[in-house]
Amino acid sequence: MSEKKGFHVAVVGATGAVGQQMLQTLEKRDFPISKLTLLSSARSAGKTVSFKGVEYKLEEAKPESFQGVDIALFSAGGSVSKELAPAAVEHGAIVVDNTSAFRMDENVPLVVPEVNEQDLLNHKGVIANPNCSTIQMVVALQPLKEKYGLKKVIVSTYQAVSGSGAAAVEELTQQTQAILNNEPFTPEILPVKGDKKHYQIAFNAIPQIDKFTENGFTFEEMKMINETKKIMHSEDLKVAATCVRLPVATGHSESVYVELDSADAAVADIQALLEKAPGVVLQDQPQEQIYPMPANCVGSNDVFVGRIRQDIDVPEGFHMWVVSDNLLKGAAWNSVQIAESLIKLGLVK
Amino acid sequence: MSEKKGFHVAVVGATGAVGQQMLQTLEKRDFPISKLTLLSSARSAGKTVSFKGVEYKLEEAKPESFQGVDIALFSAGGSVSKELAPAAVEHGAIVVDNTSAFRMDENVPLVVPEVNEQDLLNHKGVIANPNCSTIQMVVALQPLKEKYGLKKVIVSTYQAVSGSGAAAVEELTQQTQAILNNEPFTPEILPVKGDKKHYQIAFNAIPQIDKFTENGFTFEEMKMINETKKIMHSEDLKVAATCVRLPVATGHSESVYVELDSADAAVADIQALLEKAPGVVLQDQPQEQIYPMPANCVGSNDVFVGRIRQDIDVPEGFHMWVVSDNLLKGAAWNSVQIAESLIKLGLVK
Repeated sequence: MSEKKGFHVAVVGATGAVGQQMLQTLEKRDFPISKLTLLSSARSAGKTVSFKGVEYKLEEAKPESFQGVDIALFSAGGSVSKELAPAAVEHGAIVVDNTSAFRMDENVPLVVPEVNEQDLLNHKGVIANPNCSTIQMVVALQPLKEKYGLKKVIVSTYQAVSGSGAAAVEELTQQTQAILNNEPFTPEILPVKGDKKHYQIAFNAIPQIDKFTENGFTFEEMKMINETKKIMHSEDLKVAATCVRLPVATGHSESVYVELDSADAAVADIQALLEKAPGVVLQDQPQEQIYPMPANCVGSNDVFVGRIRQDIDVPEGFHMWVVSDNLLKGAAWNSVQIAESLIKLGLVK
Repeated sequence: MSEKKGFHVAVVGATGAVGQQMLQTLEKRDFPISKLTLLSSARSAGKTVSFKGVEYKLEEAKPESFQGVDIALFSAGGSVSKELAPAAVEHGAIVVDNTSAFRMDENVPLVVPEVNEQDLLNHKGVIANPNCSTIQMVVALQPLKEKYGLKKVIVSTYQAVSGSGAAAVEELTQQTQAILNNEPFTPEILPVKGDKKHYQIAFNAIPQIDKFTENGFTFEEMKMINETKKIMHSEDLKVAATCVRLPVATGHSESVYVELDSADAAVADIQALLEKAPGVVLQDQPQEQIYPMPANCVGSNDVFVGRIRQDIDVPEGFHMWVVSDNLLKGAAWNSVQIAESLIKLGLVK
């Protein structure tokens, strides 16, 4: 197989919220595909999914499904990745895994192409796609790090329910309608499917994403903290996160406070830096009420940054508001972008 | 008139979202009222409002309306307060003003009774009720200040639309239904009535509350910064705020990062402190998924605090999640509470 003809691509979890976006992204990018294999759970096997006008039948994902596959994009949950990614690698595929299964594995590069594309050169078969809320933040922070250095980051998130899957979006919709109709409803999914309690998300804000760890932070918050350090190669960077779920379908927002190593930066410098930063769209004209909002980011691969302000007390401190489509740059697009980088770097056989 | 019989109370702006809550709060608290005068704009004058089962006719608020009034609760916008509060004081009334008109006036105490009740002793006729988002934060911070001292506060807010008035709540409801029905809609109020542009609030998050100032912060953010310092008598406290409007009807939430002067505190110490703090309800059992949420705070006068965590890098840094009913502790209840304090301190003739 030559690079020109394209690659045999497998998508694992093709019916999920992210899997669907992966297929749309592969189609939009006109990704060089010679053969497409769509894999799913036994439950979804046999269903058909359309890609570039052709119907594909879903096959149940098994170790032998990866025979001949060049690139396997996984997004079917951590347990599926843990079980099948090694088999895919054994069959010669490069795995781009969108779950948290391998992210903190020191043998697995955790990659956001705008930040650490070169880490792909050290891959051993599996590449991890970071957590959605981490990705958009590091894209906005990297240009600041390169020019000024980073000392400390404090982030509070405003996260959309689609990060919990398509069923959570459906729960938000149904619950909202029930409340408007003054009808009873029973929360069943959010904040965390499989946790003990479930709470109303419609017209509410839930300060829990993923389960709690022993230190009082949630796993989502610890992901933002640990993944940011790994992706940016900044073990000494101080990172703190508070993650909150909102009644928004798609589009994560983040209120980010960052302290730079240098006190030389002005707001205009940071705006100029972000204006030409890869993957970033600057939307920062407060007097014209121009700033990013989740409702405007849906369907775009970009990370939108605005509300950039210098802290009033700390000259090296800056505040900003970072918004991105959590299903695209936060998941599907970053995964496909990693696959494109792998091809560009000649890493796919 | 003796204190035992009660006081002549006037409510200015009795038909507004906060005015209605003021009347309900006066009723619930069985506030000692000998006479009640309900004042409004010329437009609303003549309407009737019920209080303790009696119908009251609204009168147009004029300078002479305050004859014989002991306590005047103002919540009809800054321009009404600026025009009529001096007249009320001239007639011998004490004014508790819920607008921003006099908050930063050095002759006007800005009071949250749990924090600085003693400032009432210096009043010159007008007492200002702080901004809603400021009040709930300082109630949670004061016990930490008293025991450990405060160095720095960084807050990101998650604010309800009722802070923009009853019409904004109606806009959220109607817009949400339109989106669920896939019908067109035109934002007309939020983020700021009277600003140039209006944006969708349903299923969105808008990083603008009030208009923008020259330094890139909004007036709401500058209120949180300046009012916090004034109420807490902490000119040197570093405060930074990012204020965001959410599709929530009532109940403001805040992600608060605070650095203490002392590195001696543990999470359990702070929990113990807040558990017995006036006006605070601790809801902090992450393993049981117990934490404050706006949907649960509505109708309560309390400030709910949870998700207390020690920062991973900064031993004197703590994160917490603070929720309160913005119409009650954030406005109506704090105003009535100030009036109760004035009586308790013997400041009402």
